[in-house]
Amino acid sequence: MVTTVLIANRGEIALRVVRTCRELGLRTVAVYSTADRDSAVVRQADRAIHIGPAPSGRSYLSIPAIIEAARLGGADAIHPGYGFLSENPDLAEVCEAEGLTFVGPPSGVLERLGDKAVARAMMVAAGLPLLPGSHTALDHADEARAFADSIGYPVIIKAAAGGGGRGMRIVVQPEEFLRAYTETRASAQAVFGDGRVYVERYLPSARHVEIQVLFDQYGNGVHLGARDCSVQRRHQKLVEETPAPGLPAELVERMGRDALRGTGAAGFVGAGTVEFLVDPDGDYYFMEVNCRLQVEHPVTEMVTGIDIVAEQFRVAAGEKLDLTQDAVQPRGAALECRINAEDPARAFAPTPGVLEECHLPGGPFVRVDSHAFPGYRIPAMYDSLLAKLVVWAPDRDGALRRMRAALEELRLAGPGVSTTVPFLRQVLDDSRFRSATHDTSLADALRQSAPPGPGSQAR
Amino acid sequence: MVTTVLIANRGEIALRVVRTCRELGLRTVAVYSTADRDSAVVRQADRAIHIGPAPSGRSYLSIPAIIEAARLGGADAIHPGYGFLSENPDLAEVCEAEGLTFVGPPSGVLERLGDKAVARAMMVAAGLPLLPGSHTALDHADEARAFADSIGYPVIIKAAAGGGGRGMRIVVQPEEFLRAYTETRASAQAVFGDGRVYVERYLPSARHVEIQVLFDQYGNGVHLGARDCSVQRRHQKLVEETPAPGLPAELVERMGRDALRGTGAAGFVGAGTVEFLVDPDGDYYFMEVNCRLQVEHPVTEMVTGIDIVAEQFRVAAGEKLDLTQDAVQPRGAALECRINAEDPARAFAPTPGVLEECHLPGGPFVRVDSHAFPGYRIPAMYDSLLAKLVVWAPDRDGALRRMRAALEELRLAGPGVSTTVPFLRQVLDDSRFRSATHDTSLADALRQSAPPGPGSQAR
Repeated sequence: MVTTVLIANRGEIALRVVRTCRELGLRTVAVYSTADRDSAVVRQADRAIHIGPAPSGRSYLSIPAIIEAARLGGADAIHPGYGFLSENPDLAEVCEAEGLTFVGPPSGVLERLGDKAVARAMMVAAGLPLLPGSHTALDHADEARAFADSIGYPVIIKAAAGGGGRGMRIVVQPEEFLRAYTETRASAQAVFGDGRVYVERYLPSARHVEIQVLFDQYGNGVHLGARDCSVQRRHQKLVEETPAPGLPAELVERMGRDALRGTGAAGFVGAGTVEFLVDPDGDYYFMEVNCRLQVEHPVTEMVTGIDIVAEQFRVAAGEKLDLTQDAVQPRGAALECRINAEDPARAFAPTPGVLEECHLPGGPFVRVDSHAFPGYRIPAMYDSLLAKLVVWAPDRDGALRRMRAALEELRLAGPGVSTTVPFLRQVLDDSRFRSATHDTSLADALRQSAPPGPGSQAR
Repeated sequence: MVTTVLIANRGEIALRVVRTCRELGLRTVAVYSTADRDSAVVRQADRAIHIGPAPSGRSYLSIPAIIEAARLGGADAIHPGYGFLSENPDLAEVCEAEGLTFVGPPSGVLERLGDKAVARAMMVAAGLPLLPGSHTALDHADEARAFADSIGYPVIIKAAAGGGGRGMRIVVQPEEFLRAYTETRASAQAVFGDGRVYVERYLPSARHVEIQVLFDQYGNGVHLGARDCSVQRRHQKLVEETPAPGLPAELVERMGRDALRGTGAAGFVGAGTVEFLVDPDGDYYFMEVNCRLQVEHPVTEMVTGIDIVAEQFRVAAGEKLDLTQDAVQPRGAALECRINAEDPARAFAPTPGVLEECHLPGGPFVRVDSHAFPGYRIPAMYDSLLAKLVVWAPDRDGALRRMRAALEELRLAGPGVSTTVPFLRQVLDDSRFRSATHDTSLADALRQSAPPGPGSQAR
């Protein structure tokens, strides 16, 4: 039985988890670094424990600090949120050894699916379509180059340990390959402590579409439909929506079945996401499995009425899944915009500072997940996400109108603070986005064509 | 065509209307009294016009001031919100004469349904069940007393011009009748400028259940299901929910059909609410029609996915209703709590003051409609409503859990400011409320049995 949950995270997601814990009658223990001592979750959790200085390696990424806080706070479960240690097999393993419930897949699953090459091989075995690519890591430059030549350019070089858009590089011309290969390996070794990379065909015009899955500990799984996350700048998602617009229901159904079969074969437990690329012909290709809650999970919640975090806790407590595939009946359309403290005009550079003005929208069919408040000091060293603005409407056009109105109402400002709001407005107004004929290149194209001027100061 | 809307109201409902106007691409003109010059709607509307000093009679209730502001602001429509002039036939008539679109029923409908005695007579003619009562005003004390004696006690004396829980008095013993009659008449004359009263049987144990209806200008109407608003202190609603718990679907369907037939016969146009009392045997009785948006309309929006204010604008612009009764498919359960700046321990006396702390909940399936912000100075002379906290869940138990969690997250505090939050917690924890066996006497019973102590200071 789970009674007390340590939330090994910060920012909006820590608050998100507290909210569901309250509903489920679970006590909460927040952890915080020195930089986050005045944060919203510190005030909202039943207890808050300081775990170290600002650098993540000495606080949010320190397994010993997290485990010690769990002991101190009397926690019997750990929810890792996303990012940080959420997909780290070592934390899951330590939890298993210490008798703590890790709210996520078992360490073995994290191990297998966290290694891109292993995950690809498993998905091939499960019959999922993949882009031509090396199913195993390519450890020699000559071999890698020969492989790239054999599948044809453009190719993408990906760190086996990467994820969330980090540790990847596109190569358009054969003669650029060796340099990119060497650099990607070196940077992967430095960032992830694992220099292995693999190579696959790169689709210049594709949509990023992902399937949310949910499994209990007994092999029962359902999928909660598709999210389109094609609006990305440098592989970081900015706008997400469900259903995936313009995709035939039959295609989404096939992707859903594939996602369930692939993760089922891997012994998946809990909430996860299977990412695909979809090309203009409607062919789709497996990319990776995220073994954790996704930033954009709220859009799925809005259309299905399902609290995904509550499902995570039920699964972790050993309950059987109370859902059947037929009972998942999405309704309407939902859209999420990520409001980051970044300056779109300066290559999305983070803009830390103090939020003097902070008005978050409310009212019908608008959801805000945010840890921001008036006077909040945005730290420089973490993820720049300030708020997730989520809207629902009976259809996509209604959701677009509602999002535009909500962005107009939102006010987040302070000296030196810029946000992604003006850029998000550009996206929402773009004819390709409105007609759902865009692909993953949209955001970078917009950024080059019309850099927001002085208006990039958020209001 | 409507392009610019003057919002003849203040507080949360003015902001609510701005939100939908933005989505529909309508310009907004806010009006404000001196006491409201720093309000949220003043900042959010496209334009804000000062219409007079704090007393409502010289600002929000002044038809000339409103019409002058509409002229100044270039408005071609007026949305009256609820309360104030929303059901005033004179404003609707002036709008009709001046060529302004009044977002509400025509003046003739307001006139007829605003007079309780006329409304009752119309509903009797339409075949709706009514409690035994005088279908016309009783202008002579002796006649009134004889009538009360004939239908049996307890009776309730209601001002013909009353509404929203004001201007009514219950008489339990025959010998109390004459004094109550005289006082109700005098007070109705003073408050509404109309001393006419009628008398009807009073049900001591009943539920307040109301049907939301929507009509276009061409006689097409749908109902959006039932709301239960039985938690009332002194006839003022505190908690509202949909669906009405424990009521058979067939009963609600009959009430819905009756509501449509009654309002349809009255030539209703726009959004309205038909209020009923339901006794423990499942018999229901017409009470009154509210010819305006209801404070508690969000719970209906949450389960139907319909933006009722948007529907009001579509109807006002002459569009045909785009809804059929079959297309209205409520899903799950929604609950609203009214967070008033009042002290439950001091008979719900208003507690004006400055909101030093203001944190409104967010996250999954939580909606907040509020004009409050940190530093907001709560004026003494208006409605004490600070925020409407609305939650949705797949079922009523889930909604109750979610509401409890949201109330825990909420923080509204300041020197001298109390709120209804502790009292709302008592209601949510009450076994009668939880099992939906409560009636309209619950709140007053709770208040007498266990007055909240020092905990009544909101946190």
